[in-house]
Amino acid sequence: MAKSNPTKPQNVAQKLIEAHRVSGKMKAGQEIGLRIDQTLTQDATGTLVMLELEAMGLDQVKTELSAQYVDHNLIQADNRNPDDHLFLRSACQRHGIWFSPAGSGVSHPVHMERFGKPGKSLLGSDSHTCAAGSLGMLAMGAGGLAVAMAMCGEPYYLNMPKVMGIKLTGKLPDWVSAKDVILEMLRRHGVKGGAGKIFEYYGPGLKHLSAMDRHVIANMGQELGHTATVFPADEAVRRFLRQQQREADFVKIQADAGATYDEHDEIDLGSLQPLIALPSSPGKVVPVREVAGEPIYQAYIGSSANPGLRDFAVPAMMVRGRQISEGVSFDINPTSRQVLENLTDLGHLSDLLKAGARLHQTGCNGCIGMGQAPATDQISLRTVPRNFPGRSGTEEDKVCLCSPETATASALTGVITDPRDLDMACPRFDESRSFYVEDRNIRPPAAHPELKMVEKGPNISTLPEFEGLPESLEAPVLLKVGDDVSTDEILPAGSNILPYRSNIPKISEFTFTRIDPSYPQRASQHQDTGSIVVGGENYGQGSSREHAALTPRYLGVRVVIAKNYARIHWQNLCNFGILPLQFANPEDYDRINQDDELLLEDMVEALKSGNPVRAKNNRSGETYELTYDLSDRQVRMILKGGLLNMMREELAS
Amino acid sequence: MAKSNPTKPQNVAQKLIEAHRVSGKMKAGQEIGLRIDQTLTQDATGTLVMLELEAMGLDQVKTELSAQYVDHNLIQADNRNPDDHLFLRSACQRHGIWFSPAGSGVSHPVHMERFGKPGKSLLGSDSHTCAAGSLGMLAMGAGGLAVAMAMCGEPYYLNMPKVMGIKLTGKLPDWVSAKDVILEMLRRHGVKGGAGKIFEYYGPGLKHLSAMDRHVIANMGQELGHTATVFPADEAVRRFLRQQQREADFVKIQADAGATYDEHDEIDLGSLQPLIALPSSPGKVVPVREVAGEPIYQAYIGSSANPGLRDFAVPAMMVRGRQISEGVSFDINPTSRQVLENLTDLGHLSDLLKAGARLHQTGCNGCIGMGQAPATDQISLRTVPRNFPGRSGTEEDKVCLCSPETATASALTGVITDPRDLDMACPRFDESRSFYVEDRNIRPPAAHPELKMVEKGPNISTLPEFEGLPESLEAPVLLKVGDDVSTDEILPAGSNILPYRSNIPKISEFTFTRIDPSYPQRASQHQDTGSIVVGGENYGQGSSREHAALTPRYLGVRVVIAKNYARIHWQNLCNFGILPLQFANPEDYDRINQDDELLLEDMVEALKSGNPVRAKNNRSGETYELTYDLSDRQVRMILKGGLLNMMREELAS
Repeated sequence: MAKSNPTKPQNVAQKLIEAHRVSGKMKAGQEIGLRIDQTLTQDATGTLVMLELEAMGLDQVKTELSAQYVDHNLIQADNRNPDDHLFLRSACQRHGIWFSPAGSGVSHPVHMERFGKPGKSLLGSDSHTCAAGSLGMLAMGAGGLAVAMAMCGEPYYLNMPKVMGIKLTGKLPDWVSAKDVILEMLRRHGVKGGAGKIFEYYGPGLKHLSAMDRHVIANMGQELGHTATVFPADEAVRRFLRQQQREADFVKIQADAGATYDEHDEIDLGSLQPLIALPSSPGKVVPVREVAGEPIYQAYIGSSANPGLRDFAVPAMMVRGRQISEGVSFDINPTSRQVLENLTDLGHLSDLLKAGARLHQTGCNGCIGMGQAPATDQISLRTVPRNFPGRSGTEEDKVCLCSPETATASALTGVITDPRDLDMACPRFDESRSFYVEDRNIRPPAAHPELKMVEKGPNISTLPEFEGLPESLEAPVLLKVGDDVSTDEILPAGSNILPYRSNIPKISEFTFTRIDPSYPQRASQHQDTGSIVVGGENYGQGSSREHAALTPRYLGVRVVIAKNYARIHWQNLCNFGILPLQFANPEDYDRINQDDELLLEDMVEALKSGNPVRAKNNRSGETYELTYDLSDRQVRMILKGGLLNMMREELAS
Repeated sequence: MAKSNPTKPQNVAQKLIEAHRVSGKMKAGQEIGLRIDQTLTQDATGTLVMLELEAMGLDQVKTELSAQYVDHNLIQADNRNPDDHLFLRSACQRHGIWFSPAGSGVSHPVHMERFGKPGKSLLGSDSHTCAAGSLGMLAMGAGGLAVAMAMCGEPYYLNMPKVMGIKLTGKLPDWVSAKDVILEMLRRHGVKGGAGKIFEYYGPGLKHLSAMDRHVIANMGQELGHTATVFPADEAVRRFLRQQQREADFVKIQADAGATYDEHDEIDLGSLQPLIALPSSPGKVVPVREVAGEPIYQAYIGSSANPGLRDFAVPAMMVRGRQISEGVSFDINPTSRQVLENLTDLGHLSDLLKAGARLHQTGCNGCIGMGQAPATDQISLRTVPRNFPGRSGTEEDKVCLCSPETATASALTGVITDPRDLDMACPRFDESRSFYVEDRNIRPPAAHPELKMVEKGPNISTLPEFEGLPESLEAPVLLKVGDDVSTDEILPAGSNILPYRSNIPKISEFTFTRIDPSYPQRASQHQDTGSIVVGGENYGQGSSREHAALTPRYLGVRVVIAKNYARIHWQNLCNFGILPLQFANPEDYDRINQDDELLLEDMVEALKSGNPVRAKNNRSGETYELTYDLSDRQVRMILKGGLLNMMREELAS
């Protein structure tokens, strides 16, 4: 492992990166490779990850610990979600992965309760994986294939972020809680304020924030677009692990005296007030009192953004012996089995129910649009991390983000209410007492994994095998698109399509259909012989969806030629064995028509020698020079038909 | 009120009918009219009922008590279900109806807990309304319009059923419970064994069955196709009402000494054993031991068929300190807020959770296919009332019906298990103790109903107003169909269509589309001038769906001419102002082509004088004689444009 100068004082982020760095230099903006100790997958992204492990021929995961959670697709309207759950369970048994079944909880709090360890690195196929920074971990969300690679023992590559140090002083006043800290960060820095940065919290204010408070803050760092959030592993972390009966997992991690940061901020906790993010962005933060008095339809408690026992117990203490305002839907979404068990045993659940709460199953639920959509034109106050437009399921919804205290105060009054304006003593929840520890219902890797078959329902198909790149390609341009084509246009999402996420042949039938409904049928006629897509500027912008590379490849696309590419989709094309070429002369774009046939002679030879590829247009006889900016590793993976093929060979040898 | 001979000894069913009879004679098969004291509506059927009340101009309901429950459409994927909930709530405030919001529970147990009264009649727009027979009520399910009529003070008409007396002797053995009694009835009589009958249970075995046990038995009488089930109101009922803090509502109702029954059966409770209904009919009942050992995927506790506290407490006592078999989904569906509160307070919920149960929200849930669908080809054991094919949401599912004891025993072992074969003492649940009574979260009629506006989301539209029948009609035959056309072909169900149940203009766009996709568009061109449908034998067979009459009328159908009709759809046509005529000469069916224009001259005059209607075919010049078998009341309602118009006039006068 590369070593940096041991004499220079380091902050927590630098220590964590240093301890896992396998390549690159710790200089902001330069690519570094990190060893990944733990992975986390959830069911919505995990099925493809498991199919990728299978395609690579992985036997047992090479991480210290990998855990698979079923928390997203809990509404079983037909066989597809439960089939996925069984598939994931069997894949876990096959590959040595912990399995948390439906009903055990949201990945992030459960991972923190059962598996989080200071000093370890965690990569998860869920954007809120960053929450584990609360325990002094280096925790990041990533695409499914990156997580699958980590499970195969491969490093995770990213550009070295800057580290912003945020000094916390003072102590939160009554009725103000951790959610208001991260809402204050959003108020100050906006939804892009974290780009390329690690947030590191430090200072005397920390001692008043429990580990679960820090989870709230780390979790929603994602809403500022950060790379990660880290906290030191201090006494609060030790206390949390002791409560979880895992004190042996504690390791103290502190910034060195004299450690510095690339950027600075400071929050006096004592000066904060209850805040609220208005529809429809986590960045539209104002004081609650500015919008007080607006009638609400729903107060929603739960999600990975406020997952702790205290986030449910405080609302319970607030409503004890009282009654929710008539007509308000007070939706309680326990975040883990352990939280629900303790709420039940401590009498808090009883208080919530008697006050009129509606209790839902343990899981992500309405936070990801799985139920609990608000009525038309009605305000919903939620403790969740996001309020993007329509995310609740209701178009033009009015979802606000706030603390459990604010949501509950508003449930009691029926209008948006600053909890300080209630005629009520602020409840004290003692986080230091011991609780029931739920460690029986998450299943360890099977004892004899080599014996387990992977169970696949009718909607789950093995990933198709792809051939390597042919020496030369003579193939039609079956589609020519303009600038800024998004991955949503390449492969749409939506409730009719996403259920086929584990069935590549089926989901391929939706490829490019928003641009040309005839495309899948036309492409399938060239599935074996290959076809070409021509694009303009910024090809593949938008989400990181891997299916947007996988399904064109399944339909036979071997080469994309564009003016330039959105970065993540460009990586995905390489990963799935499609060669992304660029016009050396952008005007050549205009010289190619849809349905032209191009001849790319000795394409592999050109790639190997680093020369431009040349394409001859069989219609016009013109020849175009095509460039690429691929690393040696990327050239190798494309020649082999993609990263999965390359990894399969490496794992076999 | 008509009176029968007071000297003849009466059974409970006769007493209840006698006390509510406003017309007809208590002679099996003859039509009787019954005064309705209470009504029950749930959300899936209630929205149309409320629109019908609005269309009739009803101010306050004329029943002693009407209650609206939100228990079916609890998955809020978008604005439509929550908009319906708000609409129902406001309509309740408007019309003087109790409102039980989402989270308060399944209509049948909640109605029993809060409102059930011995001696009263109850009509509900849900087929399991019969469950209230457990308290000595005369309780029946019916179509939405019949319930709306009852809310307007109109009698409910049915043919006087036969009464089958079922004598219960002995006492249930350990591990055998009420569910096994009704499964035994299904084993003996099959799913059609109750047609045209009231089941009346009596005898010394009754004293060992609690009121909630009787709910289980009365509820699933529906699965034998009965008209109603009645139990006497005895000490068990008094005890139940005392527990609910409503002992003042108790009235003793017993069969007279020497009362007789039309039919007889007898069950020695002591001889029963755990039973199970195999896929995919409630009538396929066998002893559990015959199928023991089959691996299961799911054990499902809940629904109106096993709604009592004991139905959850006994499973909790069984799993206390144990662990559910790995891989089994043990789904707990509390049936009322009160049940969930008591489960929580008594520690049972904690035991269930720690054993690995997955707790769902309070409501109907998976019983009606709202979530919890089993995986492909996997066995699901459920305490619900029905296992019709695909009802779970999974096609070709394998759902079995059984007691909570059998489901839980199987959850513990992972295979179908007779609970007697567990190495465990049979838990004793004391039903006589007092419990927490939940009476705060179901909302009484508003104090000032005249002030309340009805809230309608964008998907809820006022029922269209229909004109009366024209004196003469000259209109095209826009559709000619064959024999046995079902209401599913007239207006399909399905998840794309049912959400528009409160939006007649929108749902009308699906009318007849399974037969002719162009029909709605063609019909709408004649919406004001009228059109005709020609059918064969058994026109309108299948479900009782009122929309199958409402949407053709909305599209302009004024007359249907068929060889003959399925009875319920024929009534629905009259109710919504479509004249159902029959060919006097069935061969005339062949003489009419689609798109022929027919002239029905002086049609109203013919109806008023009781003469046949004559239709002239403008294409061929032929004339057809058309008959009808309508009561004076039905003729009046058709002339006025339907029952809603007629009732509006009556209510206004």
